[in-house]
Amino acid sequence: MHKLDVALGERSYPIHIGRGLLDGGLIREHVRGNQVMVISNETIAPLYLERVTAGLGDLQCDTLILPDGESHKTLATLETIFDALMANRHSRTTTLVALGGGVVGDMVGFAAACYQRGVDFIQVPTTLLAQVDSSVGGKTAVNHPRGKNMIGAFHQPRAVVIDTAVLDTLPDREFAAGMAEVIKYGLIRDPVFFDWLIEHQPALAARQQAPLAEAILRSCRNKAEVVAADETEQGNRALLNLGHTFGHAMETFTGYRDWLHGEAVAAGMVMAAHMSGELGWVDAADRRRVIDSLAAWRLPVTAPPGMTRADFSDLMALDKKVQNGRLRLVLLNQIGDALVTGEYDPNALTRTLEAFCER
Amino acid sequence: MHKLDVALGERSYPIHIGRGLLDGGLIREHVRGNQVMVISNETIAPLYLERVTAGLGDLQCDTLILPDGESHKTLATLETIFDALMANRHSRTTTLVALGGGVVGDMVGFAAACYQRGVDFIQVPTTLLAQVDSSVGGKTAVNHPRGKNMIGAFHQPRAVVIDTAVLDTLPDREFAAGMAEVIKYGLIRDPVFFDWLIEHQPALAARQQAPLAEAILRSCRNKAEVVAADETEQGNRALLNLGHTFGHAMETFTGYRDWLHGEAVAAGMVMAAHMSGELGWVDAADRRRVIDSLAAWRLPVTAPPGMTRADFSDLMALDKKVQNGRLRLVLLNQIGDALVTGEYDPNALTRTLEAFCER
Repeated sequence: MHKLDVALGERSYPIHIGRGLLDGGLIREHVRGNQVMVISNETIAPLYLERVTAGLGDLQCDTLILPDGESHKTLATLETIFDALMANRHSRTTTLVALGGGVVGDMVGFAAACYQRGVDFIQVPTTLLAQVDSSVGGKTAVNHPRGKNMIGAFHQPRAVVIDTAVLDTLPDREFAAGMAEVIKYGLIRDPVFFDWLIEHQPALAARQQAPLAEAILRSCRNKAEVVAADETEQGNRALLNLGHTFGHAMETFTGYRDWLHGEAVAAGMVMAAHMSGELGWVDAADRRRVIDSLAAWRLPVTAPPGMTRADFSDLMALDKKVQNGRLRLVLLNQIGDALVTGEYDPNALTRTLEAFCER
Repeated sequence: MHKLDVALGERSYPIHIGRGLLDGGLIREHVRGNQVMVISNETIAPLYLERVTAGLGDLQCDTLILPDGESHKTLATLETIFDALMANRHSRTTTLVALGGGVVGDMVGFAAACYQRGVDFIQVPTTLLAQVDSSVGGKTAVNHPRGKNMIGAFHQPRAVVIDTAVLDTLPDREFAAGMAEVIKYGLIRDPVFFDWLIEHQPALAARQQAPLAEAILRSCRNKAEVVAADETEQGNRALLNLGHTFGHAMETFTGYRDWLHGEAVAAGMVMAAHMSGELGWVDAADRRRVIDSLAAWRLPVTAPPGMTRADFSDLMALDKKVQNGRLRLVLLNQIGDALVTGEYDPNALTRTLEAFCER
């Protein structure tokens, strides 16, 4: 088993990575009070819920099963969590356990941030994407009809428990979507890891345990370092959003239904690399390597059908990285070296949108 | 004009107290970005909204008017705030201005805590209760049908701007409700202030400016000191909830309609003093003085008609101060010296509920 720490002073917490961690007492060890609510979704609960609750039998242990999918990541679903907590009389010393992918983790984390002005929660991510990205770092949120993750909070978990065995049942498409975020770490700050990922693509696609655990560990370490240096995104934490401004626009355009988050991020990273090329920062060969690294996973590398430049402009204007009217973007100086900036030639953005949109 | 600081490190902020502060540039000075949304309710907006927006003309200044009343302090109303912010494309550098009483302040503060994971907000309280209590200290929330302030966040404002002239139009009943929270500071930690308040009751009831400003200043100073020592209520901040556990139960029982918050707190403080007497901590004369200090303002000093011991027990079991199954209460050692404790003879609580309930 690997253990990493996210160093945030009194809000520090461990990330445990290993095979079979759902069983055994690891989750129980991080519960401080005598109440717990395990919250999952209708896809994950039949697979793993009983194994998790089995280890919590000495506590008041309630469960809640939410509908599956990004389209349910709303204030309305949040309200069902609050209703269940109140109906079961959970107090400020309760602990919520988020058992599921990024949607479950983001919502349960936000519920934990708000319930009685803040209670403990533990992330037990069951998708590759949640394991390498969304479960670490304390960003929680729900979507607004006009924009993704627009309503939320920074609220750090007490622990992240990553059981790599749950990936055995993860569909290929979701596995690939997670790899988009893994590749992201290489692109923004770890060029050696980027090369390693290309080299080990076949082994990872075969889900070989050793390289898979290594990829998760290295992703979490990158994420933990970035978060520890900038918890509330005053600066370089924004680098983690490479591809996300384009990606969120595509997700919003497709109604959070057609594309998985990681798929939108993949296409968004290709667009960011393209624009970095238009600005003269990334050469054609590296632009090609970015596309190839993602296409190897059959991830989308262009915008969704029917999405226009006007759609992009409208949706990106609502991005959280807009500051006083200027859209800041995460771009690449080169592979392994990203920057966040509002200082760019807007014509480069126009040319990228032209290249990726039908009209 | 008086100025106090709430000392919270990088989250420190000033409280300005004076006559006529709605006009002039004081609010504008605390806006950091180029967007602002002034949020008020249908009672307050016709009186003061234009005066506030007049000073913000160089910014994108939008307004939103909410329905009036505690029964609207819900997630549904919060959603209308998010809708307005998104529709007007407010970014993470926006500032929300809460112009109204405690309900507006609590909701706008919570909206500011969650919108894009946290934006600036400024408290401009227009009731005595909001000026001396809820606008200071960063507690924000909405109600759940089963309990008051159950969903919320700690989010400090950038500034609190208290214009004492707005109290000229405040109805007597609301003014008295605010005095309940003023008297609370005397009861929990400032016995000299408690005596001063009894002495100056007639002058305060006549709304004489000098004693009124003094009462507000002294209340805010007490609140600021308590908050600075314990921002997120790990300990002594809970003393500010004297009367509130009983009071919240009464508010929930009456559906947040019949009683103002300060009225419920008044009756709740009488019950807390009674129970402290049953425990042998407060003598009969002081118990009497607590009642008299509140009754002078025609505040309720008993439970609402029809509320039973069972109603109290059910509703208090959901209080945020329940920890691992034990209800902690704020009680009095004596006037000017409160404590929060779960260590008490439960028979004293039973006798108090018997004394205040019909059956």
